[in-house]
Amino acid sequence: MKIAKRGRIPGFIVMDVMRAANERAATGADVLHLEIGQPSTGAPSKVLEAAKRAIDSELLGYTDAFGILPLRERLAEHYRARYGVSVDPARIVVTPGSSGGFILSFLAAFEPGDRVALAAPGYPAYRNILVALGLEPVEIPTGPDSAYQPTVPLLREMQEKGRIDGLILASPANPTGSIVSSEGLAEISRYCDEQGIRLISDEIYHGIEFEARAATALASSASAVVVNSFSKYFSMTGWRLGWLVLPEDMVRPVECLGQNLFISASALSQHAAVAAFDCTEELDALVANYRRNRDILLEALPKAGITEFSRADGAFYIYADVGRFTNDSAEFCRRLLAETGVALTPGMDFDPARGNRFVRLSYAGATEDVAKAAERIGDFLS
Amino acid sequence: MKIAKRGRIPGFIVMDVMRAANERAATGADVLHLEIGQPSTGAPSKVLEAAKRAIDSELLGYTDAFGILPLRERLAEHYRARYGVSVDPARIVVTPGSSGGFILSFLAAFEPGDRVALAAPGYPAYRNILVALGLEPVEIPTGPDSAYQPTVPLLREMQEKGRIDGLILASPANPTGSIVSSEGLAEISRYCDEQGIRLISDEIYHGIEFEARAATALASSASAVVVNSFSKYFSMTGWRLGWLVLPEDMVRPVECLGQNLFISASALSQHAAVAAFDCTEELDALVANYRRNRDILLEALPKAGITEFSRADGAFYIYADVGRFTNDSAEFCRRLLAETGVALTPGMDFDPARGNRFVRLSYAGATEDVAKAAERIGDFLS
Repeated sequence: MKIAKRGRIPGFIVMDVMRAANERAATGADVLHLEIGQPSTGAPSKVLEAAKRAIDSELLGYTDAFGILPLRERLAEHYRARYGVSVDPARIVVTPGSSGGFILSFLAAFEPGDRVALAAPGYPAYRNILVALGLEPVEIPTGPDSAYQPTVPLLREMQEKGRIDGLILASPANPTGSIVSSEGLAEISRYCDEQGIRLISDEIYHGIEFEARAATALASSASAVVVNSFSKYFSMTGWRLGWLVLPEDMVRPVECLGQNLFISASALSQHAAVAAFDCTEELDALVANYRRNRDILLEALPKAGITEFSRADGAFYIYADVGRFTNDSAEFCRRLLAETGVALTPGMDFDPARGNRFVRLSYAGATEDVAKAAERIGDFLS
Repeated sequence: MKIAKRGRIPGFIVMDVMRAANERAATGADVLHLEIGQPSTGAPSKVLEAAKRAIDSELLGYTDAFGILPLRERLAEHYRARYGVSVDPARIVVTPGSSGGFILSFLAAFEPGDRVALAAPGYPAYRNILVALGLEPVEIPTGPDSAYQPTVPLLREMQEKGRIDGLILASPANPTGSIVSSEGLAEISRYCDEQGIRLISDEIYHGIEFEARAATALASSASAVVVNSFSKYFSMTGWRLGWLVLPEDMVRPVECLGQNLFISASALSQHAAVAAFDCTEELDALVANYRRNRDILLEALPKAGITEFSRADGAFYIYADVGRFTNDSAEFCRRLLAETGVALTPGMDFDPARGNRFVRLSYAGATEDVAKAAERIGDFLS
């Protein structure tokens, strides 16, 4: 029987790396996991306590499609406190991970066949979700010149080649960790508004910043969709909880889509997440740890001969050019893993056109592991 | 800025009913909730205990896109024990609710524009998810003659009017509670195989059966997709956990889609759900309660003058023809709620063409409430 073409989107190469890494670990050999895009820590302790309380006191049935009101109000408060932006909780939608948020916002904002621009390198699921939903990803090749971020001139260039209906912008970005300045973001927001381009601002790595703080698109746009999640800063990946902040015109369409497509996000995760905002001290300690790990790599990589890499302003990634050593970064990663136990992600997941000479290093793990990995990479390359 | 047409799918009318019911409850007036399609109970106690243990012992990060192996193996064992069917755990995918399962299987099985048949009346989200994903729902008008279920002759009739690429069949069904016999299901399975029609078998109400047990499509088809969930029999709606059993050819496409669209289902829900299969006694007591509630309504409705309704073989619904009393069941439900406090769902959610003379009664609540509701409906109609 037939299989739909859109069911033939690629899997993640990182999954193959993780499988190889786990196979190696199963033989008793040690593995340093610099391939995994998630914190190595669990949820903060108050979240765990809140989850247990919810198990004891709540029925945990379906919630409102938009999520429980206390969580939506707490999120609105978060926008006031962190960004000085006032957001009506009615515009905040709790989603099953940012994944659910992408599905809902893409469906509500774009017609089949619409063309949505996004930076290459970038998070591969953007491209793949777009394709699965009948949309056309338009990759903007970016490099160190623009800190691997889209800019208005780059966007204009793409428009010369064809209509652009949407733009996905991630800051801090995966796999580069780069952050768009608040002026840069405001400029892009204004340009998108002007041109009728729906801006989807992926702010999932907000809170994990080492230099300037990342700005929210809410500060500069009334038509942008903001996507965020409890997975990264809040260290709650497996809880599958994210949120959207919607422009007014998308509220009702997303509500109808959410009722039908998801019914609601996990009730238990929602009740637990209300406590996440009371864990700043614990969470900021994790960010300090990411910073230490980053600094180790920023010092070690040039010594190992890797001199071209992204500005790691935030998130927990460095995207490094290993073109001096290989033209096949997948093979490079396989050898590195086999010979040293260090697992990295080859760049092809993030940039099919040019990823063959790049790797992503994730430094979300233990500092000790990152330090060991830096040493072994140095030995491997010398 | 523009909003996509597919973002304009309708919400559920039942949500408006729930809002009205909650508004009434907020004034202090009592409300009997026969509109809600979920158990009034929480998860079974061993599931709650397992969830707490997982909070203490697991990191709760992303899981495999297909779910944790212990749960997939437990599900395979469930198919052996309950149906005598052998299923390789490699074909079992844990999903964010059956909702996630529908999204994944529709995307993998159908091309944009494909025509998917389904019974009217039926679960409204089928229709709305299909439309959101660019598919064309083809409603098969069903009635008491076929117990509100599709049949091969009905399917043939639809094919005379246009190509059919898929068939969604739910047994027990929402909103009718009717069950297709195992012979009937086998006949439909064979016909779908023959015709290249992908059968999506929604088995989410399996386990809640009052007469014969519902058969699984796995017993009669190698190409059908089975959709199921922990929400109904296992009484875990808010945990947002379901599963698919996939035919071989759909395993890899669904894996790639799942990695990209959802990453994984809630890790906590997955760890907790492993214990759900050890709660048969507690869960069967809930089914006995649904049966008691059903019997109260089956006795009371005819006395109240409602003589035409679906065979309530399973699930916790009765779909009743109130055409003797009204030609506008939404108005009928509003008046019933306002005058008696009994909340029902008007039929338009389930059958836009003919639902104006039907209502759905959900008897998933407390027996005392169902008994009171039966009495008040009698008084209201006399």
